[in-house]
Amino acid sequence: MKDSRSRRKFIRSTALAAAGLMLSKPIRLFSQQNHNKMSKNIKTKGYAGLDKAGKLRVWDFERREVGDNDILIDIKFSGICHSDIHTIRGHWGNQVYPQVPGHEIAGVVAAVGKNVTKFKVGDQAGVGCMVDSCMTCTSCKNGEEHHCETTGMVGTYGAPDKTSPSGITQGGYSNNIVVKAHFAIHIPKNISLQHAAPLLCAGITTYSPLMKANFNKGDKVGVVGIGGLGHLAIKLAVNKGAEVYAFTTSESKRQDILSFGAKEVIVVNSLDKLKPYAGKLDYMISTIPYAYELSDYAVCVKPNGFFTQVGQPINGEFKIDNAKFFFSRVNFNASLIGGIPETQEVMNLCAENKIYPEIEIIKASEINDAWDKVVNKEARYRYVIDAATL
Amino acid sequence: MKDSRSRRKFIRSTALAAAGLMLSKPIRLFSQQNHNKMSKNIKTKGYAGLDKAGKLRVWDFERREVGDNDILIDIKFSGICHSDIHTIRGHWGNQVYPQVPGHEIAGVVAAVGKNVTKFKVGDQAGVGCMVDSCMTCTSCKNGEEHHCETTGMVGTYGAPDKTSPSGITQGGYSNNIVVKAHFAIHIPKNISLQHAAPLLCAGITTYSPLMKANFNKGDKVGVVGIGGLGHLAIKLAVNKGAEVYAFTTSESKRQDILSFGAKEVIVVNSLDKLKPYAGKLDYMISTIPYAYELSDYAVCVKPNGFFTQVGQPINGEFKIDNAKFFFSRVNFNASLIGGIPETQEVMNLCAENKIYPEIEIIKASEINDAWDKVVNKEARYRYVIDAATL
Repeated sequence: MKDSRSRRKFIRSTALAAAGLMLSKPIRLFSQQNHNKMSKNIKTKGYAGLDKAGKLRVWDFERREVGDNDILIDIKFSGICHSDIHTIRGHWGNQVYPQVPGHEIAGVVAAVGKNVTKFKVGDQAGVGCMVDSCMTCTSCKNGEEHHCETTGMVGTYGAPDKTSPSGITQGGYSNNIVVKAHFAIHIPKNISLQHAAPLLCAGITTYSPLMKANFNKGDKVGVVGIGGLGHLAIKLAVNKGAEVYAFTTSESKRQDILSFGAKEVIVVNSLDKLKPYAGKLDYMISTIPYAYELSDYAVCVKPNGFFTQVGQPINGEFKIDNAKFFFSRVNFNASLIGGIPETQEVMNLCAENKIYPEIEIIKASEINDAWDKVVNKEARYRYVIDAATL
Repeated sequence: MKDSRSRRKFIRSTALAAAGLMLSKPIRLFSQQNHNKMSKNIKTKGYAGLDKAGKLRVWDFERREVGDNDILIDIKFSGICHSDIHTIRGHWGNQVYPQVPGHEIAGVVAAVGKNVTKFKVGDQAGVGCMVDSCMTCTSCKNGEEHHCETTGMVGTYGAPDKTSPSGITQGGYSNNIVVKAHFAIHIPKNISLQHAAPLLCAGITTYSPLMKANFNKGDKVGVVGIGGLGHLAIKLAVNKGAEVYAFTTSESKRQDILSFGAKEVIVVNSLDKLKPYAGKLDYMISTIPYAYELSDYAVCVKPNGFFTQVGQPINGEFKIDNAKFFFSRVNFNASLIGGIPETQEVMNLCAENKIYPEIEIIKASEINDAWDKVVNKEARYRYVIDAATL
């Protein structure tokens, strides 16, 4: 992609690929001529979004060749995150298509670059929400690659990527991925790949702020929105000794939630249901990925406590009621996934303590249906794609 | 007001009073008959709002008699706060009229109730934003009467008040006030009443969060919105050793702001002007009382730092950009005035350290013009009404 001729070819072939996705039969992204030039690229198959309509279709595409610092992972399972839906449907900004979503990726190392010592072929490995960063700034050196101060983190899908044959990073709804070894996570042998996958986004996204909250055993922790992220937040907080109060709009989840270890389930079919909890909780985390009455929930936290938002709504915008904040004296913040060391930490913790996400394994052909169910709050609690069905 | 007959009379007389305010000549609220019944009530004159149009007119009304725990203050000066305008114009909810605004009240004690030991006749005294609370809950006992957990604090104007002949509390744009001694502040002799008045809202509202921020000498403190509150925030933060960065939209305030001790003035005529400050400040306080791009300012704070909102916009609502919060890791909170002990503290601090608000003394007849100037950012920096001109 370094000269203008190859860039033109890239643009043309991408356009062809996009057109191909509109046909019933998938077509290849690259002509045979291009393919010969890039013969070390890795062929792969995935499910890609084509446009904001957000219906995914089979797509044959290529990964970059395995570089000296890379590993190739044969993907076995890939979780479905609400972020996948928001991104592909353009809820957070315009996208480049075709785009393969998926950032809860678990598989087996199939090749390693010559500089790689972190993994060997046959290891279980996973990839979460980022695949690169500058690696030299203070944040990167401190294991907070998601807060890289120079280039910013490179997201696992949809981010401009000169090393990618398609020009953007392509995610985990596919059967392999090439990734810098630094950004891959060891998956211990004592956790299955299908259970490990959701930890790479849902797990770390809730674990990181819960650990920062630094609550004490017996403290009252509120979890708002009990889906893929929320149900793991409950399990993680319970594991750390919290008394968990779970806020959901789904009465049908009550028994499940109690089985996850929550002390109490509050079915918020009216905001009045929140009133008895005003100023009662030590900490609160919300996973709701849509606009909602954030301030009404936040005031459930004790004065000077913290309320953390991890769900990201359409257009990223929340309305807040300033008076509820000045009367409650609650601190609002938001949290974005976690760094690589902390992702490894939550993976190891869950493996050792048998903290498993509640999953439903689906075939690739069921992805679009699963997306609808996620939006309709029907997931119980994480769909995981079996990559063997691609 | 305890029986239905007196309530009917009250309603009738209030209606008469409201009607009277529409006439060129002010009328008295109470008929002679009523007045005889309530002969210990205190006659007073004020400027009242009549409706959401928010044009104030002279109004003769009455204060309750001086109770055993009360003091009567002859008001000498009363500051004009943006909250007065928001309240009377219904920006924060429907109001009862006639309503006399004003919660930066400074004067001289003219009478004391038999139980009062805190003041004696002739003392300088002030009243800020509240005149009552339950006095028995934990917050009240801890000197955080503004966070009273039972009745809530009773605001200085517009709050339902059975002890008030007009049925609501009436504020400081008038020539006297009867108030529980607990809620009055000693004004030391070494500060003038006109300089003391703005400390009772603008002073405490900025002082309280600045003290909670607990910054170190030399820390970078941002102040957003340099009006009545903002200019005092600068002076208070400078006094505590901060390096102050002042954000204003008014180029014409630059030299003034530097003279207040700010290190740097940033004239935000475009949000691009904020970019060099991203992640640079240790703490930030915003006094802007309208909807604005709060998130763009908040990201100027260092990761894990705090951004405090003290200005209250129309309808109390702000929009926040969640992504700016999760990338910046800034904590948002809001702050409401301060308790009585802390208000006394800022009063004493300012008197001792000659921290004076920049004021322009106006006649009562200039109040409506002054309100327009406050809204148009023309105040430099606090209008103070000379009650002798009422």
